Amino acid sequence: MLLSRLFSKTSKESASDDRSKNADLLTRAGFISKTMAGVYSYLPLGARVLWKIEKMLREEMDKIGAEVFLPSLSPTANWEKTGRLETVGILFQASGANAVSVHTNDARYILNSTHEEIITPLVQQFVKSYKDLPCAAYQIQTKFRNEPRAKSGLLRGREFRMKDLYSFHASEEDMMDYFLKKAIPAYTTFFKRIGLGDRTVIALASGGDFSKEPSREFQTKCESGEDHVFHASGSDIFYNRELTPCHAPAWGNPKEEMRPREDVVGKGIIGVEGLAKFLKIEVERTTKTILFETAKGDVVAAAVRGGYDIDEHKLRQILGTDFSLATPETVKRVTKAEVGYAGPLGLPKNVRVIWDDSTQGRRNFECGANKTDYHSINVNFGRDLPEPSEFVDIKVAREGDLDPKTGKVYEVFKTAEVGNVFTLFRKFSDAFGFTFKDKDGKEKPVYMGCYGLGTTRVMGVLAEIYNDEHGLCLPEQVAPARVHIVAIAKQKEEEAFTVAQKLYDDLTAAGVECLFDDRLEASVGSRLADADLIGVPWRVIVSPKTLEKKNIEVKRRIMKEAEMVSIKDFLKMLEI
Amino acid sequence: MLLSRLFSKTSKESASDDRSKNADLLTRAGFISKTMAGVYSYLPLGARVLWKIEKMLREEMDKIGAEVFLPSLSPTANWEKTGRLETVGILFQASGANAVSVHTNDARYILNSTHEEIITPLVQQFVKSYKDLPCAAYQIQTKFRNEPRAKSGLLRGREFRMKDLYSFHASEEDMMDYFLKKAIPAYTTFFKRIGLGDRTVIALASGGDFSKEPSREFQTKCESGEDHVFHASGSDIFYNRELTPCHAPAWGNPKEEMRPREDVVGKGIIGVEGLAKFLKIEVERTTKTILFETAKGDVVAAAVRGGYDIDEHKLRQILGTDFSLATPETVKRVTKAEVGYAGPLGLPKNVRVIWDDSTQGRRNFECGANKTDYHSINVNFGRDLPEPSEFVDIKVAREGDLDPKTGKVYEVFKTAEVGNVFTLFRKFSDAFGFTFKDKDGKEKPVYMGCYGLGTTRVMGVLAEIYNDEHGLCLPEQVAPARVHIVAIAKQKEEEAFTVAQKLYDDLTAAGVECLFDDRLEASVGSRLADADLIGVPWRVIVSPKTLEKKNIEVKRRIMKEAEMVSIKDFLKMLEI
Repeated sequence: MLLSRLFSKTSKESASDDRSKNADLLTRAGFISKTMAGVYSYLPLGARVLWKIEKMLREEMDKIGAEVFLPSLSPTANWEKTGRLETVGILFQASGANAVSVHTNDARYILNSTHEEIITPLVQQFVKSYKDLPCAAYQIQTKFRNEPRAKSGLLRGREFRMKDLYSFHASEEDMMDYFLKKAIPAYTTFFKRIGLGDRTVIALASGGDFSKEPSREFQTKCESGEDHVFHASGSDIFYNRELTPCHAPAWGNPKEEMRPREDVVGKGIIGVEGLAKFLKIEVERTTKTILFETAKGDVVAAAVRGGYDIDEHKLRQILGTDFSLATPETVKRVTKAEVGYAGPLGLPKNVRVIWDDSTQGRRNFECGANKTDYHSINVNFGRDLPEPSEFVDIKVAREGDLDPKTGKVYEVFKTAEVGNVFTLFRKFSDAFGFTFKDKDGKEKPVYMGCYGLGTTRVMGVLAEIYNDEHGLCLPEQVAPARVHIVAIAKQKEEEAFTVAQKLYDDLTAAGVECLFDDRLEASVGSRLADADLIGVPWRVIVSPKTLEKKNIEVKRRIMKEAEMVSIKDFLKMLEI
Repeated sequence: MLLSRLFSKTSKESASDDRSKNADLLTRAGFISKTMAGVYSYLPLGARVLWKIEKMLREEMDKIGAEVFLPSLSPTANWEKTGRLETVGILFQASGANAVSVHTNDARYILNSTHEEIITPLVQQFVKSYKDLPCAAYQIQTKFRNEPRAKSGLLRGREFRMKDLYSFHASEEDMMDYFLKKAIPAYTTFFKRIGLGDRTVIALASGGDFSKEPSREFQTKCESGEDHVFHASGSDIFYNRELTPCHAPAWGNPKEEMRPREDVVGKGIIGVEGLAKFLKIEVERTTKTILFETAKGDVVAAAVRGGYDIDEHKLRQILGTDFSLATPETVKRVTKAEVGYAGPLGLPKNVRVIWDDSTQGRRNFECGANKTDYHSINVNFGRDLPEPSEFVDIKVAREGDLDPKTGKVYEVFKTAEVGNVFTLFRKFSDAFGFTFKDKDGKEKPVYMGCYGLGTTRVMGVLAEIYNDEHGLCLPEQVAPARVHIVAIAKQKEEEAFTVAQKLYDDLTAAGVECLFDDRLEASVGSRLADADLIGVPWRVIVSPKTLEKKNIEVKRRIMKEAEMVSIKDFLKMLEI
C-alpha cells in the first residue's frame, strides 16, 4: 500500500467531538472517520484491522458452528412473536423515505439489533428430530441499535459489527455443556490470539429475566470502559457490578445512645447528599426507601443506606417476580404523602419492607417520614421500627464493599465488555413454538444459547490499550501492515528510493504486508510522526545515510532504539 | 463440513413463492432461505459461495482501489445536498421503532441504497491538492432498496450485497482513462474468473441525465434476466434496449391509394391492440401520440407506430431538455379533448410534433382525432398533415428492428445485468462543493466515476446458468466445496465409513474443501440426489462394493459417467 495513493491521511486533530482515546487515535491515524454520532466509516487502514479481527474470529467460530449470513431487515411479525417489538427501546425500523416512495402503504420492517428473531424460525424450518440436534450457526454482520448515548468511539455505536452465534439443543444439559465447554473456550482462545488475553476476565452477569444461569461477560480491563468488574480476592471469580454479592462495610456505633425521634421539615431536597448536608448528619445515617409494585399488585418497600442504590436484579431474585417502580398514585395511597418522603415508618401492614445489610447496626438513622415535606431523624430499630427479621443484599455494589464469602474487600477495576454469552433456555423456542421429536417420539422444546462479540468494539478496545504518547501500536496480528517503509530521498531516481521500492516489492511478493511511504515531498519529521501514529510493528528507513553503511535502519514500534542492519538480516528478523 | 451437523437441509420443494430458477434451486439445495420478499438468509452452503465470489472480486478490486467499509446509515442532510432525498423512490429511512423508543424526537436516517452521499464528503475531507488525485476506494457492503417488485430470487432484492467502487480525478480525461482502462478491464477479468466470461457482454446504456458518456452494463445472457441486449451483427457493439439506435422494419405500401379521411367514434378503447381490432385495421396502421411538457413549458407531441413505445432517453437527447408527461389539463387545453384521443391533427402551431421513423411510408393510417371519443382513420401525410421534415428515432427498440448503420436486423437476447459502470462527471462533487487545488494554484472541480457490482446477484445468475435437471453444478471456484464424499455403510465402524472419514480428514488437511455425507440412516438414493442438487464438482462414493475393488467411485458433476479409481489416482485428478 503506497501512502501517496491512500486517499485517507493522518491528521493532527481528531475531527471527532468524541473525546474517547480510541476515537481520537483511530481518527488521527486515518483508520476511521465519524459519519455521525455512533456511526463510523472504516478507511483503508481501519478496514484492514477490522477484517483481520474478523478473520481470526471466523477461524475460532468455524470450529464450533457453521457460518451463515442473515439479513438486516426482518418482518415486524417476528418481533411481535417474542414481545420485543414493543419492549426494546433501541430498535430501529425501516420504512419508505419520502413522498416519491414506491410503496404508498406504510409497510415497515425492523433493522435487526440482534438475530434471535431470524435464526430461531430459520433453524426451526430444518430441525425436526433429535437427530438434527445439537447444531450451531454464527454470522458476522452489521447490527443497528438506536443508542441514546452513542459514545466512546467504537465502544458504543448505533451501527456496529458483531459476531453472533446461536446454538440449539435437545436438553438443558446439552445447552450448558456447549455453553461451558465450547463457546466459552472458543472466546477465550480468540481473545488470547487477538492480544487481549492477559487483560480479559470472564465476569458473571445477569442472565436476563428468562435465565436462571448467569450470563458470562468477557470484560477487558480498560480505563475508558463503561463497566466495573468486582474481583473476589484470591479467587478466579469476577462479577459484573450488577451481580456482585456484597456486604457494605459496617458503619455506625450499635451502642450509640438512642436519641428522641424527631420529624424535621425539609421540603424538596433532592438526593441523600443534599439531605445529609441539610440535616447536618453523615450520608451513611440517611436511608433511601423506594416503593415497588410487583406483577401481582403487591407493594414492596426496599431500603438501603444513603450512598447506595438499589440493584433491581438482586431485588428480582429475592422477590421471585417481576416488578416496577410504584406509580405516584400508589406512593400517595400507601404513604399518605407526596412522592419523595417515603420511609418504613407506619406503612400499611401488607407492605413488605426489605432491608439491605447496609442499614444494619446503625443507631439514630434518618428515613422518610411518610408525611409530605418531612424527614424522620433519630429513628431506631426495636423502638420506632421492629427489628428486621433479616437483612439481605439488594444494593448495587460499590468500591470498598466486601465479598460475603470471605469478608475481604473486592478488587474493582474498570472494563469494556468485549463479548457476552447467554443461556437462553426456552425463551425464543417457546415464542416460536420450536420443538423437536425426541427418541421417545415425543415433541420436546428446544434449548438455545446465544453468544455475542462485537468486532468493531474489539478494535476500539485494542486501540484503547495498545498505544503510547506517539500513537497506536497494535499487535502484529491486527496491525494494518507488518512493515512501514520510509524512503528518504529528493527524487524517485535516487538510490534510497529505488532500494526502498525494491524492498517493498520483495516483501509484498513474499506475502508481507507493507506500507510504503513514498511521499518524498513531505517533511521527514511529519513522515516519521505518521509512522508512529499509524504504529505498524516494524519501521524501516532507507536514506542516503543508511545506505552509506549499506544498511537500512530498523525500529520496532514498541522499542525505543533503532538499529542499522542489512536487508538480509532484516528478513531474518521477520522470520521469512 | 459434515452433512449430519449442517442444520440446513435440501428440500423437495422450494419454500419460496418466487418461481425463478435461481430461487428455486438455491432454496431446494439449502443454500438460501427467503426471509421475506426480496430479503434472503444465506445458509452455510450459500454463505460459502457468496464469500468466494466476494473474495475473488476483492482480489481484482485491490488492484485498482483501496478497500473501505462505509456505514449503512447516513444523515438525511447528505441526501438533501444531492437532491436525491426527495427524488429516489426506493430509499428506505430508519427511525425509532416503537413507543418505548429511546429517542422521543423523530430523528431519521437514510439506509444507503448506494454510497455516493457518503464517499464524496469522506474523500473530500482528505483530498485537497492535485497531488492527492487520482484515488479510488471500494467496499463490499449490504445495500437497501425498497423495490416495488422484489422478484427473481437473488436477481432483484430489497436487501442485497454489492461491491461499489468510486474514483476521483483531476480531469475528465483522467476519469475516462480510469473508466476505460482500469475499471472495465477489472470487471472483465472478474467475470472471466467467476465463470461468466463467455456469456457476459458489455452493453452501452444510459449514463443518466448527468452524463454525456453512456454507462456500460455487464450483461450476462440468461433466460430469466430482466433486460434485453441488442447486438449489432458482425460487430462487438451491444446496446441495452433503452439506448439501442434502431429503425423499424418498413410497414405499409407507400403507393396505397389514399382513402377519404374519417373520424370514427371509439370510446374508452385502451391500447393499440384493442383499437386495431375495433377499427378492423392492422396494429401497424395505428399511431400512438403522447404529449410531453418540457422544463421550459413547451408542449411536444411524440408519435410512434402502433406496437412501439416511446423511449424517453432518446426523446430527451433530441429535445436536449428535461420533460414530463403532459398533465391532463395541458392535454385538454392543447387538444380540446379528453385524455386518450390526442393526435397530430390540428394541433396548435407551437406544439412541435416529433415523428418516429416507424411512422414513415404508411398510407391511410390511424391517429387520435383530438376530439373526445374520436379516432381519425385514413389519415395521410401531404394531404391531412404536412409531410414531416424529418423522421427520427424515439422508440423503444423491439426484436426485428434494424441497426441504422448496417440496415441489418439486431440479434436480441435476454440478459441479467451483473455490473454497471458510470462516469459521474461533476454531479456529486458539485453537490458537495468538492474541489482541489491544481498545479496552477486554482481550485478546480473533481471528476468522479462509480462502478457497481452486485455479488448476491452474481450468485443468482451463476445458479441460473450452472444447473441441469438434477440441480446445481456451479464452477469449482465458487462451489461450496470441491469434493462431496458419500459413505455408504450401515454403521460408523464399517470400513466404508472409516475409509471415507480418513479421505475427508486427509483432503481437509490438504486444504481441499469437502462435504462429508455421514448420514448413514438416510437412503442411498436420497443422499445421491442431494449430492446432485448441491452440485459439488467431484462426488466420491465409498461403499463395500467400491472397496472390494480397493477403489472409490469418482464422478464429476458435469459428466455422466462415474469411474472406479484408487485414492492415489483421485488425488492426482484433484492435482494435489
